[in-house]
Amino acid sequence: MHPFAKKSADSVTAFGEAKLITAIRRWLGAASPRAPFGIGDDCAVLPASRGPQLITVDPVIFGRHFDAAVPPRAVGAKLLKRNLSDLAAMGGCPSAAVLALTLDPHTSLPWLEQFYRGLATCARRYRVPIVGGDIAQADGVLAASLTLLGAAAGPRVVTRTGARIGDSIYVTGVLGRSLASGHHFAFHPRLAEGAWLAGRPEVRAMMDVSDGLAKDLGALTPPHAKPSLEPGALPLRRGADLRAALTDGEDYELVFALAAHTDAAAFARAWHRRFPRTRLTNIGHFARSNALSPSAVRLEDFSGYEHLR
Amino acid sequence: MHPFAKKSADSVTAFGEAKLITAIRRWLGAASPRAPFGIGDDCAVLPASRGPQLITVDPVIFGRHFDAAVPPRAVGAKLLKRNLSDLAAMGGCPSAAVLALTLDPHTSLPWLEQFYRGLATCARRYRVPIVGGDIAQADGVLAASLTLLGAAAGPRVVTRTGARIGDSIYVTGVLGRSLASGHHFAFHPRLAEGAWLAGRPEVRAMMDVSDGLAKDLGALTPPHAKPSLEPGALPLRRGADLRAALTDGEDYELVFALAAHTDAAAFARAWHRRFPRTRLTNIGHFARSNALSPSAVRLEDFSGYEHLR
Repeated sequence: MHPFAKKSADSVTAFGEAKLITAIRRWLGAASPRAPFGIGDDCAVLPASRGPQLITVDPVIFGRHFDAAVPPRAVGAKLLKRNLSDLAAMGGCPSAAVLALTLDPHTSLPWLEQFYRGLATCARRYRVPIVGGDIAQADGVLAASLTLLGAAAGPRVVTRTGARIGDSIYVTGVLGRSLASGHHFAFHPRLAEGAWLAGRPEVRAMMDVSDGLAKDLGALTPPHAKPSLEPGALPLRRGADLRAALTDGEDYELVFALAAHTDAAAFARAWHRRFPRTRLTNIGHFARSNALSPSAVRLEDFSGYEHLR
Repeated sequence: MHPFAKKSADSVTAFGEAKLITAIRRWLGAASPRAPFGIGDDCAVLPASRGPQLITVDPVIFGRHFDAAVPPRAVGAKLLKRNLSDLAAMGGCPSAAVLALTLDPHTSLPWLEQFYRGLATCARRYRVPIVGGDIAQADGVLAASLTLLGAAAGPRVVTRTGARIGDSIYVTGVLGRSLASGHHFAFHPRLAEGAWLAGRPEVRAMMDVSDGLAKDLGALTPPHAKPSLEPGALPLRRGADLRAALTDGEDYELVFALAAHTDAAAFARAWHRRFPRTRLTNIGHFARSNALSPSAVRLEDFSGYEHLR
């Protein structure tokens, strides 16, 4: 479905602002609480948090993150899921979201309805109330930016900092060919896995793999260290090679550092009891920069997704 | 300063993503806490809230909210201030903000620096840490969307709902000609005033005037009522007429309903002791729909700002 209407009668501007806001509330349905706890006042009112909170923001933009070939329901769901993946990466669970929309005047009303219905279905599934938003008009633009608020699922959040030399590096699922396989729309954010991992003190640092492992791993690597990855150890998606696994991006898997002293076999058993269908792979460890094994992947030969290019 | 660079060497893409993120942290300076409490992890970690929270989101978009004639510092400040005005309208005070940027590849680095420095100066002034954000690239777009989190400044928040027939309608400051006068960039969000008003139980409902009083008042009007405004009572900005005051928009003033039984003279004295330099005007009252005075402004003859047109 093309996001821009052929007949101007099908456009958001022909429909008008007041009717559109009413329609959006209908499309969101149970995912949208009543004002002042949802859309309809100057701000939305949220309940007090019980502990530290987490906040993240990510967009989807026409021509960048999706095109006319993508079903609008998948676009709406992906907008929420990519933010949920950021929350999962710290061991968080969601509490509320707000949405800022920028619409070309020709944006098609049927497209927008399907976008919102996809977002609403995903919001109900992951229990994220959509509490507010804004709609602005700009020529040639169709973009949505979602800010997600959450909290630690357990007693702590896991940051990207904390890995030490000798720690093992693990990744969930498989990597590579996310765009070619449709995984970048079909993925399930690793919320349960992230919460479970954050409950394990031997998990020292964690992040999600969104720009490609070769680039993302840099943020997890402790000072004076390098990731030492064995080329054969990487879990590949069907059809993916080493380069795809390291550089394609949009994997939305978790990568984490496990303390060197951990009983790896016991850890793997506990994981598989809790997540029998989610692959977990030890892909290497953090080595001293000057002590990399000659067989290790030369990560400097690979680069991940650049957001500005 | 034009936001798009003439020489590609001055563009954000020539600079690159990693260097840009480092530069943004420098430009934000003290307005940007360190990760995990600020930019640099999958999410930002925020302290637990002490009570109910408020959340709102508003953008600034090139070609819609600003053009090349506007100093980029003013654009950055306005982005935060228009969100602060929404918070003020409920009696809130800010706690944190996140920023989603969409940049054309030719966006000029000097323009972006001034935008961030304007945002940072404003963030320090109003004590709003900028805790996170996202940068995406899209051709022909220069847009920034800010999500603002806050809390009630006192024991309650004031919503748009709660006015009753007979209540007086008050407005702060003067109205009209906001764009022509530059007020839409120079304004100060009415945070102190909003907090003070929320502390008065006789203030029954409140909102900010952003789309023009004629349109905005509809959201404050109780069922079976109409706003009865005396044409001579409206506080006009220099050069503004009645139409300008009712329809121009971007006033960023507060409009509120004061309970009918209130001692108006005592209320006005208390206001002027606290805010000696901020005008407060009783512009009318909410009348029964079928009992409007013949001299009252016919609001249906005026319309405010339409976000989609």
